[in-house]
Amino acid sequence: MNPQDLIRKKRDGARFSDAEIGAFITGVSDGSWADYQITALVMAMFIHGLNQSEQNALVKSMLESGEVLDFSDIDAPKADKHSTGGVGDKTSLIIAPLAAACGVAVPMISGRGLGHTGGTLDKLESIEGYNVRLTKAQIKQTIKKCGFALAGQTNSLVPADKKLYALRDAASMVESVPLIVGSIMSKKLAEGLDALVLDVKTGTGAFMENLWDAQGLAKALVKTGNDFGVRTEALITDMSQPLGKYVGNALEVYECLKIMRGEMEEAMQPTLDLSIELTARMLVLTGISKDVEEASAICLKKIQDGSALEKFHQNVELQKGNPSICDNPETLLEKKISQIPFIAEKDGFITEIDTRGVGGAVCALGGGRMQVKDTIDYAVGFSCAKKLGDAVRKGEEIGTIFCRRKSQADAISEKLRNAYKIGVEKPQNSELVKEIIS
Amino acid sequence: MNPQDLIRKKRDGARFSDAEIGAFITGVSDGSWADYQITALVMAMFIHGLNQSEQNALVKSMLESGEVLDFSDIDAPKADKHSTGGVGDKTSLIIAPLAAACGVAVPMISGRGLGHTGGTLDKLESIEGYNVRLTKAQIKQTIKKCGFALAGQTNSLVPADKKLYALRDAASMVESVPLIVGSIMSKKLAEGLDALVLDVKTGTGAFMENLWDAQGLAKALVKTGNDFGVRTEALITDMSQPLGKYVGNALEVYECLKIMRGEMEEAMQPTLDLSIELTARMLVLTGISKDVEEASAICLKKIQDGSALEKFHQNVELQKGNPSICDNPETLLEKKISQIPFIAEKDGFITEIDTRGVGGAVCALGGGRMQVKDTIDYAVGFSCAKKLGDAVRKGEEIGTIFCRRKSQADAISEKLRNAYKIGVEKPQNSELVKEIIS
Repeated sequence: MNPQDLIRKKRDGARFSDAEIGAFITGVSDGSWADYQITALVMAMFIHGLNQSEQNALVKSMLESGEVLDFSDIDAPKADKHSTGGVGDKTSLIIAPLAAACGVAVPMISGRGLGHTGGTLDKLESIEGYNVRLTKAQIKQTIKKCGFALAGQTNSLVPADKKLYALRDAASMVESVPLIVGSIMSKKLAEGLDALVLDVKTGTGAFMENLWDAQGLAKALVKTGNDFGVRTEALITDMSQPLGKYVGNALEVYECLKIMRGEMEEAMQPTLDLSIELTARMLVLTGISKDVEEASAICLKKIQDGSALEKFHQNVELQKGNPSICDNPETLLEKKISQIPFIAEKDGFITEIDTRGVGGAVCALGGGRMQVKDTIDYAVGFSCAKKLGDAVRKGEEIGTIFCRRKSQADAISEKLRNAYKIGVEKPQNSELVKEIIS
Repeated sequence: MNPQDLIRKKRDGARFSDAEIGAFITGVSDGSWADYQITALVMAMFIHGLNQSEQNALVKSMLESGEVLDFSDIDAPKADKHSTGGVGDKTSLIIAPLAAACGVAVPMISGRGLGHTGGTLDKLESIEGYNVRLTKAQIKQTIKKCGFALAGQTNSLVPADKKLYALRDAASMVESVPLIVGSIMSKKLAEGLDALVLDVKTGTGAFMENLWDAQGLAKALVKTGNDFGVRTEALITDMSQPLGKYVGNALEVYECLKIMRGEMEEAMQPTLDLSIELTARMLVLTGISKDVEEASAICLKKIQDGSALEKFHQNVELQKGNPSICDNPETLLEKKISQIPFIAEKDGFITEIDTRGVGGAVCALGGGRMQVKDTIDYAVGFSCAKKLGDAVRKGEEIGTIFCRRKSQADAISEKLRNAYKIGVEKPQNSELVKEIIS
């Protein structure tokens, strides 16, 4: 089973056996396949697709390419949430402590932002001292003490994924359902979960812009999770505008703390709603609650009584962050940052937001990465005062740009003006949760 | 037009503009595209194909990636023959001097063997001292003096092709019509020809095993040649058995010399027939003859009167080879080589030959290359006493193995036994020339 034979086979549209998929992933992991052979085969997989048996073999081979976490000595049910990525998508920071407060053990291995999307690890690193580089032992210790851990991928967890992802990114093969499923599910299954809730984004800020593609991905993820014995559900949720109020690393932590402190503003409501919706499903899938209604009520109570905030406080201390931000979220906001209003140029309704463009504007401010090696300015970002469907008057503030230098504001305002469409007719409301795939 | 955008476009099946194809070939030539990006795009081209406008843009961009030969100061019409490769396919060694003897200038840029197929350059290098590394100026000088030159590709001629071919070979993307057309036609058009005859092989020893694929390739080659103003014709010819008598570098030169000396044996007849057929079409396309019948008669005469041999003799001298082989072809056959008979195991007819397997057996003897860097033993090979449809009796010689060490003979005989099928019914004759595409 040399590279040439396997490439030829998939090139011509044939199906792989489990052993053939395994030989490919072994070749990726041990470096015996050249990068140019890997991308040739991945392109053939991209175009011809994989059937469910190949899909499962891919996930299994990737999973087995590295170590897996073992939490069998933790009594609580293990569950996690994974999002396909968006703009202002900060729910992990609420869901992990909230689920922990409800009795779930949450080993949340997260990623970094790239391009227009943010990453949970970057958001956490805007907290002074916070350490996301945990060993397997530290992850377990942290979960035992506060119910959850928020950590980056260790080198030994799914090593094939890192290389495959980098090549897919460099050679335009990111948006492939079987490859996305392989990447996400191998990492999530390595967490040793009982249940998994997936937040598949759709809309102008999502990788899967249209609902049809998002449904396809969601179904494939759910099928694979269940095939591997993890109770899995997916929610298809709205990414036709940034989620909640803020976009930007420190600003998003700030928003979550405000919510968990009961100091929520109206624009933050979708962040709370989606966090509760996703956590509630974790409670049902793990058997802690009998239905979503009951689970949602428990979640809301655990926010209101401060349990979620307390868990978050414990975790920040355990992961070496400065926990005083839990008491004074305002300390996350740097005083030296300029706040420049972004103004409506005419009367009307906000009819459409190019959410990818908004994420791109924050990235251009320094708040995200164009390339993996870029560093991040945690303090910059954008706050959305007006949401889709809101009426605005000429000169009224649509949002606020948080920037390091006032000189940046003109270029960023230009990007934002291109991203926001103001029309005469009020658009239909877009549902936050569009579909549940189980 | 960065690599990612172009890859994404072809991945999704869209059509490229001329400028986009040009940007790809520029990226290949100047090294700004990574190998893994090149193979990703080539795989997408392989699977989705190219339309004629993309095909012509590919050929044009490849052609323009390097220098072209300019023979405008040579009065004779310029023509060449190109074969898609096979086993025992030695016609170039007759066609070049024969066409020259008929008044055609032949700038024949050839290649080396790889895998089961032989290469004209390797065959020539079995002649002591023969130099195939000619500069552009030397090619022109040689043509001016003897009417033809047999040379390897210079570094400045279609530089994109060398890299593309190596990657296609390493990542299983050789057998793609648009890419083969790009590779062949960019090199042939760089020769500054008036006419081109293509010998597209089909059968068990050809890259395009079935007739349908060969027809598709032949049509694409002819269309492209004519689109670029070169009068082009393709013959689809039989490669269901080795061509003529011998397979192996020195042995094939020997066969051609025997033919040109009028000392032909019966098994060599197809080599002469095909050489005349192809040369005759060069004469018609260049306007030297009015039809193929007349041209064939001229060709036969130029063989019989020794004109072709004389041209070959002149060329060997000019390209620094030892011309005494023309007088004593037997000196090409090394005395230290063992000749081991390959025997029929039962009575019957030769019904099928896995010609690729025969080529592979000669390659395994050291007569070909498994990899580009391998060296070649020019003296080894195989002679085919019996051809498809011939009757054989148990114990009768089907052919002779020419090997360096007697110890090799067992393994090679085994390979040959797998390649030759002996059945009870005499098979239908296979036409040497199956179709003419013009």
